[in-house]
Amino acid sequence: MASSLLTRQLAVSLQQNLRLAAPGSRYVSKTATKTVSEFEYDTPSMKTAVPGPKSQELMRQLGEIQNVGAIHFFCNYEESRGNYLVDVDGNRMLDVYTQISSIPIGYNHPALMKVMTNPNNVSAFVNRPALGILPPENFPDKLVESLLTIAPSGMTRVQTMACGSCSNENAFKSMFIWYRNKERGDTNPSAEEIGSCMINQSPGCPDLSILSFMGAFHGRTLGCLATTHSKAIHKLDIPAFDWPIAPFPKLQYPLEEFARENAQEEARCLEEVEDLIMKWRQKGKPVAGIVIEPIQAEGGDNHASPDFFIKLRNIARKHGCAFHVDEVQTGGGATGKFWAHEHWGLDDPADVVSFSKKMLTGGYYHRDELQADKPYRIFNTWMGDPSKNLFLSEVLNVIRRENLLEEVTRSGKALLQGLYALQTQYPHILSRARGQGTFCAIDACDDATRNSIMMKARNKGAFLGSCGERSIRFRPSLVFKEYHVHQLLNILNDVLTEHE
Amino acid sequence: MASSLLTRQLAVSLQQNLRLAAPGSRYVSKTATKTVSEFEYDTPSMKTAVPGPKSQELMRQLGEIQNVGAIHFFCNYEESRGNYLVDVDGNRMLDVYTQISSIPIGYNHPALMKVMTNPNNVSAFVNRPALGILPPENFPDKLVESLLTIAPSGMTRVQTMACGSCSNENAFKSMFIWYRNKERGDTNPSAEEIGSCMINQSPGCPDLSILSFMGAFHGRTLGCLATTHSKAIHKLDIPAFDWPIAPFPKLQYPLEEFARENAQEEARCLEEVEDLIMKWRQKGKPVAGIVIEPIQAEGGDNHASPDFFIKLRNIARKHGCAFHVDEVQTGGGATGKFWAHEHWGLDDPADVVSFSKKMLTGGYYHRDELQADKPYRIFNTWMGDPSKNLFLSEVLNVIRRENLLEEVTRSGKALLQGLYALQTQYPHILSRARGQGTFCAIDACDDATRNSIMMKARNKGAFLGSCGERSIRFRPSLVFKEYHVHQLLNILNDVLTEHE
Repeated sequence: MASSLLTRQLAVSLQQNLRLAAPGSRYVSKTATKTVSEFEYDTPSMKTAVPGPKSQELMRQLGEIQNVGAIHFFCNYEESRGNYLVDVDGNRMLDVYTQISSIPIGYNHPALMKVMTNPNNVSAFVNRPALGILPPENFPDKLVESLLTIAPSGMTRVQTMACGSCSNENAFKSMFIWYRNKERGDTNPSAEEIGSCMINQSPGCPDLSILSFMGAFHGRTLGCLATTHSKAIHKLDIPAFDWPIAPFPKLQYPLEEFARENAQEEARCLEEVEDLIMKWRQKGKPVAGIVIEPIQAEGGDNHASPDFFIKLRNIARKHGCAFHVDEVQTGGGATGKFWAHEHWGLDDPADVVSFSKKMLTGGYYHRDELQADKPYRIFNTWMGDPSKNLFLSEVLNVIRRENLLEEVTRSGKALLQGLYALQTQYPHILSRARGQGTFCAIDACDDATRNSIMMKARNKGAFLGSCGERSIRFRPSLVFKEYHVHQLLNILNDVLTEHE
Repeated sequence: MASSLLTRQLAVSLQQNLRLAAPGSRYVSKTATKTVSEFEYDTPSMKTAVPGPKSQELMRQLGEIQNVGAIHFFCNYEESRGNYLVDVDGNRMLDVYTQISSIPIGYNHPALMKVMTNPNNVSAFVNRPALGILPPENFPDKLVESLLTIAPSGMTRVQTMACGSCSNENAFKSMFIWYRNKERGDTNPSAEEIGSCMINQSPGCPDLSILSFMGAFHGRTLGCLATTHSKAIHKLDIPAFDWPIAPFPKLQYPLEEFARENAQEEARCLEEVEDLIMKWRQKGKPVAGIVIEPIQAEGGDNHASPDFFIKLRNIARKHGCAFHVDEVQTGGGATGKFWAHEHWGLDDPADVVSFSKKMLTGGYYHRDELQADKPYRIFNTWMGDPSKNLFLSEVLNVIRRENLLEEVTRSGKALLQGLYALQTQYPHILSRARGQGTFCAIDACDDATRNSIMMKARNKGAFLGSCGERSIRFRPSLVFKEYHVHQLLNILNDVLTEHE
């Protein structure tokens, strides 16, 4: 029934848009004052319902080669600018999802275009090196001037990787190696370990585990997937390790209003964490590391307090587990600090912080102790991609030059206030507005309503992402200004008015 | 003792080179007729022992940030050309390792430089899309004109990924999904499956396995690593799945001379494969797929006959297991065919063929049946990188235009003949010369001698890779001509003469 409701709503929405599009007109929401950089467009501009006819034809073509069930529409990246994503049917949308949160400073930023046209950079694109054996001359310098300038507190070392999953897989490996080396002390691996590891058996391949949280998302390769618990479709039919899974606090929002209840809920979860660590040790599968997102993103934008994370870090320390903060989605500035976990004020830094997405390169920072003791233990052919480091350097320059973290804080405040206002105005539809910086979310009353709101907003020119069971997640780039916030809020308001 | 011998040999070698380098001279081997493209250098040119002082200083710097134990030297990629890799100390080496076999047509190939300077391509580099949800307009076309033109027989579909490990991880997932869907028939996943998969338990996360071979290398993320059995250092301390591992045939070379013995050895291994499939089914961990390299590369360049692979494919078919050919290292033309498994003449094509390295993008081809039935089952943020597809298109153009597969066959024949001649001349040092195309290898009498030969060859201007316990692997790019073969053989001959 929910599904047929959605279908009806969709049909209405499509008709409206076709009607709007008919005289070649465009749907433009009321807009606030313009303060946007000159290279960008001013407003969304819609010509067809989305996906339009060209996108549909391309979907049919690609469907011959791949599963296209997840594709929203096809894009004209050449014409996209800043916060505006242009599709192949000429629709121009305010992009509040930014390629699953992976575009740091908008489309075709002039500073990034320049990286491409600088003749000194050509070789980095054309000759991709095996970084672990034959790095380019400028590799140490590039790391120092890009990744190390934003290293989280306590992190002295960084290893680049190609993507988020590879980053987490290798971060897990570095925790396993660290844990076993700690157990082994000064002795070398035994002949039995060396022999048994070749055939996947302990003690060489030990029964160690990583503790993760229900609702977590850490990637989809087999190691990562064993710590991912956001949606069944990600995990169904894939073998997994028997690793412990703790409850993530289910908090009530706004956090300030439910401080006591939330503290109780967090205490319950932390108690469970300690129980699981003990249980898995008794099972003979000790917890080598704990992995957690500062905000569970894919799982529904679930927050927890700094106090929760500080106590969790202490539990990891107490039980000899490494503490891994997965900043693949939260990192890169969207929360108003470069790393979301900087909001916690940890005295005792994390052991590992992994990243990807907005950082353009994957990788992880770690403390000295987490450095693998021998070469080839953490290794693969490419170990990242220096051409991505070039773009990252320039992104960091832009962030500094344009004070983008301050901008994010300002835009984020406006966005969250706007979401509060909307949920007050439409309490039967919206609830649980929450966020840090522009890393915000709001819940619809159910899945079908959430999807309908998103579809209608898209047809009016605001492209959004979903997460969890009924949340809309806001993931604009760092150049999303108050001006864009108001554009978005106006569109949402229009959608909700019609929805009533 | 072996190690102190190596040290002495190294010292001698270093002295010789320092002496050679002293008057600013360069070491140039006797060379054959020149037939190389105009953009390339003619010869190696050595100025210091390798690693030289600049490389050593950079290693010290990078050592503050990462483990540098695997680094050979630092490179000047701007100055590298074609088959010649230039290091930061001005040494120019004939590159017979090509970034672990991942440079398809040499350094700074003019055709690839052009990709960079074509303004139509800028956007593909600057705006990396989430390909699974928002592909660029030209994405289907680009797949059709690049990856699909070289699709192995029976493969109608292709999924790009960022690297080799991610390709194999996702290929494994597609086999697990296919296997469970087959078992399930027309019924939907049960509520119990949906529920249990969220907590890593069966039946939702079933106890399925992938059968791999001793000596195999399929990557280092946790799923891949459970099928990798080439070196203990890759696997030590990392938890693994209890999956079956069959013996890979240990053949005698030259293959033609030991046809009967080799056929017996292959029959033994195939029998073991069937036994393992039965055993693991009885254990409740049925084999969903078999993964194998056409030539075990990292594990020591171990070959098997077409007959072995055809029979293995039949066994997979008979027991309902998917058959996955891992062409990450063998694919892309180095064996003289685009895919090494094309040498087998399979009537019944493989189910999955994975690739990366020389293909510049990772990914895997598969049959229709291996297509995941629902979106988001095979998925991640980037799903590859369209900018790598642009380079691949151009690489394929060059391969066709310059008939590089024929060239590889010609150079490969010269290389293998040369290796046969060397092992006849130095039978106490070298043995087991083997290869297909330029994808060749030869064994030294022991690990220390192998390393000493490689080190000396490097100091004379030929950069080589190792594999297995005492093999040297030859992995030149596809523009490695007979001229370069003779250059290499002359250097090896000089090294071996001195070694005596």
